[in-house]
Amino acid sequence: MNKEALTFEIKKIDKKTGARLGVIHLPHGDVETPVFMPVGTQATVKAMTPEEMKEMVGSYIILSNTYHLFLRPGHELIKEAGGLHKFMNWDRNILTDSGGFQVFSLGDLRKITEEGVEFRSHIDGTKKFLSPEKSMEVQNYLGSDIMMAFDECAPYNATYDYVKKSMQRTTRWAKRCKEYHKQTDKQALFGIVQGGFYKDLRKQSAEDLVDLDFPGYAIGGISVGEPKEEFLDILRYTAPLLPQNKPRYLMGVGTPDYLIEAAIAGIDMCDCVIPTRMARNATALTHYGRLNMLNAKYEHDFTTLDKDCNCYTCKNYTKAYIRHLFKAKEILGARLLSIHNLRFLVNLMENVREAIKQDSLIDFRDEFYSKYGYDK
Amino acid sequence: MNKEALTFEIKKIDKKTGARLGVIHLPHGDVETPVFMPVGTQATVKAMTPEEMKEMVGSYIILSNTYHLFLRPGHELIKEAGGLHKFMNWDRNILTDSGGFQVFSLGDLRKITEEGVEFRSHIDGTKKFLSPEKSMEVQNYLGSDIMMAFDECAPYNATYDYVKKSMQRTTRWAKRCKEYHKQTDKQALFGIVQGGFYKDLRKQSAEDLVDLDFPGYAIGGISVGEPKEEFLDILRYTAPLLPQNKPRYLMGVGTPDYLIEAAIAGIDMCDCVIPTRMARNATALTHYGRLNMLNAKYEHDFTTLDKDCNCYTCKNYTKAYIRHLFKAKEILGARLLSIHNLRFLVNLMENVREAIKQDSLIDFRDEFYSKYGYDK
Repeated sequence: MNKEALTFEIKKIDKKTGARLGVIHLPHGDVETPVFMPVGTQATVKAMTPEEMKEMVGSYIILSNTYHLFLRPGHELIKEAGGLHKFMNWDRNILTDSGGFQVFSLGDLRKITEEGVEFRSHIDGTKKFLSPEKSMEVQNYLGSDIMMAFDECAPYNATYDYVKKSMQRTTRWAKRCKEYHKQTDKQALFGIVQGGFYKDLRKQSAEDLVDLDFPGYAIGGISVGEPKEEFLDILRYTAPLLPQNKPRYLMGVGTPDYLIEAAIAGIDMCDCVIPTRMARNATALTHYGRLNMLNAKYEHDFTTLDKDCNCYTCKNYTKAYIRHLFKAKEILGARLLSIHNLRFLVNLMENVREAIKQDSLIDFRDEFYSKYGYDK
Repeated sequence: MNKEALTFEIKKIDKKTGARLGVIHLPHGDVETPVFMPVGTQATVKAMTPEEMKEMVGSYIILSNTYHLFLRPGHELIKEAGGLHKFMNWDRNILTDSGGFQVFSLGDLRKITEEGVEFRSHIDGTKKFLSPEKSMEVQNYLGSDIMMAFDECAPYNATYDYVKKSMQRTTRWAKRCKEYHKQTDKQALFGIVQGGFYKDLRKQSAEDLVDLDFPGYAIGGISVGEPKEEFLDILRYTAPLLPQNKPRYLMGVGTPDYLIEAAIAGIDMCDCVIPTRMARNATALTHYGRLNMLNAKYEHDFTTLDKDCNCYTCKNYTKAYIRHLFKAKEILGARLLSIHNLRFLVNLMENVREAIKQDSLIDFRDEFYSKYGYDK
């Protein structure tokens, strides 16, 4: 039997919550968990260089999107370049999603069959096809350290019947992914638990996927627009259904409170486009809540974004200057807020890990929430 | 008498051309000449951080625009921030232009009188007024190391009569600037020679301004759309009219050939938006000519932009990747080409200085032209 691409160690469990402090050993280095993974959709974390992701943000793993790279520049080209790491000049870990979430988001532009999904490219309208096998081929060509099984993420308002069928197909697809994917010593393949907001379907999905014995598991299909209580309910129900000794990845999360709650629920990995997307929209995440830098009140504000942050941006620039950059539509504005927002979330998870070490994650959360202005 | 903000030393003169190797001593450090000054129009060199300007590009002086900063965020705000250096986090030298070139470019939106120029803001249409005194006030507030006198840059097709009157007014305005500007120990004020494409007017302008005894002189009103021979003719005629022992600045130049010819003609300083503007338009300046990165022929080109360049971009990225970034409209594309193009021109001038040391500037030019594909 081959050596596996991924091994996972749990170093410590928070006594009051069960939150896990761990290390994922991967082909491109170790990743301490719980971890926030910034998103580099099109083979670049928007507005950032790889060096900045290491030195200014402190990331050891980023996410990239199979759907986008499949369409442009194409996975064959990236293979020809020597793989995604080399293509984009990033020598730490990469997780790729399966393309499922994006193709299902296309609505009328896609058609689902048992075989896979036919869809039209959002770039040029040409017909394309993704299936479990094709998604594996694309991700194999990209050479990511962690690959995701091709799944369907059912919409929030889907009926029980729809979600059940979709979840069962997702399981059959997960099996096909596992059968297709050969280089398990180089790339770890995760299964994705679906089942919408129906607990019995979540349970079934988790059990079926655990039977397939993946090296890690994701929870998909929540944080898709539902109220926070429903999110927390399904999260707290589903996470414990997954094996203790394998990494658990909550997909598409996101905001500081969701990240902290995910860690408390026993999640090890999260990703979201929020920090870079907000940055380009002039919004800063800070310990004291979100700041919209276009707000006139910052015009003469010569203080830094966040007095509790020591990122490059907060060390060197004032709110007044950053506001000027956004008013003047200067690229540096998006850059400075991207650095800050990414560092903010990566640093948040560093603090979460430290709190787990001290068995004080609940205290950490309560203090964070009261500063930020969140309700508990 | 106060210490002057600027002193200039000529270290060596190229025996075959008269090109000058020098050092300008300024409040924010020494600048070796001939030098290319990148442009940071709105208090940022587009897409770049100050650290990148130092470490990746190697700039000791940048230019910023009075017109733009006067309108947004306003010179009072920048004064309140502690001056332009502090506002934008740049602790090396800054040259500010006078705003003249920009307001005269507004065409029908401005009205010239002896007192100054009334114009409408390109941002919000509000009425504004710039005069010699106002330009000095703005530049004093900005706190640039080198300030420019408020001048009129007559258009290329202007009549002899128009250019004569405009040149004479520019001289009267230069005198008013000199009278207004008090902090000559902190900021050096340059006069600008005008006179269009009429040599007798150029001579008159130079003589009158030399009489006013500025610490440095610029040549304005060429490189405004005329054929290259006319540019060279006026450049070569005007440069020797200026004092040997003071820095000579050719405004708004630009391309590699113009920069080399300027040095040969005895120019010490140049500036242009070309490297960053071209970068945002996907064009790379290289030793082998300009490359448009959107060209399909680079799709599978896994070589670097320029094999004779060792900038950050050329050390780490392929043409195929850069092309992908532009096709995908990713900010990193503009960033990588901005770094490369800026480094290319700053490095070009480093090589020009080295050639002057060796009395080999003509050989350097000829070799550069033959590689680049320029006609001599």
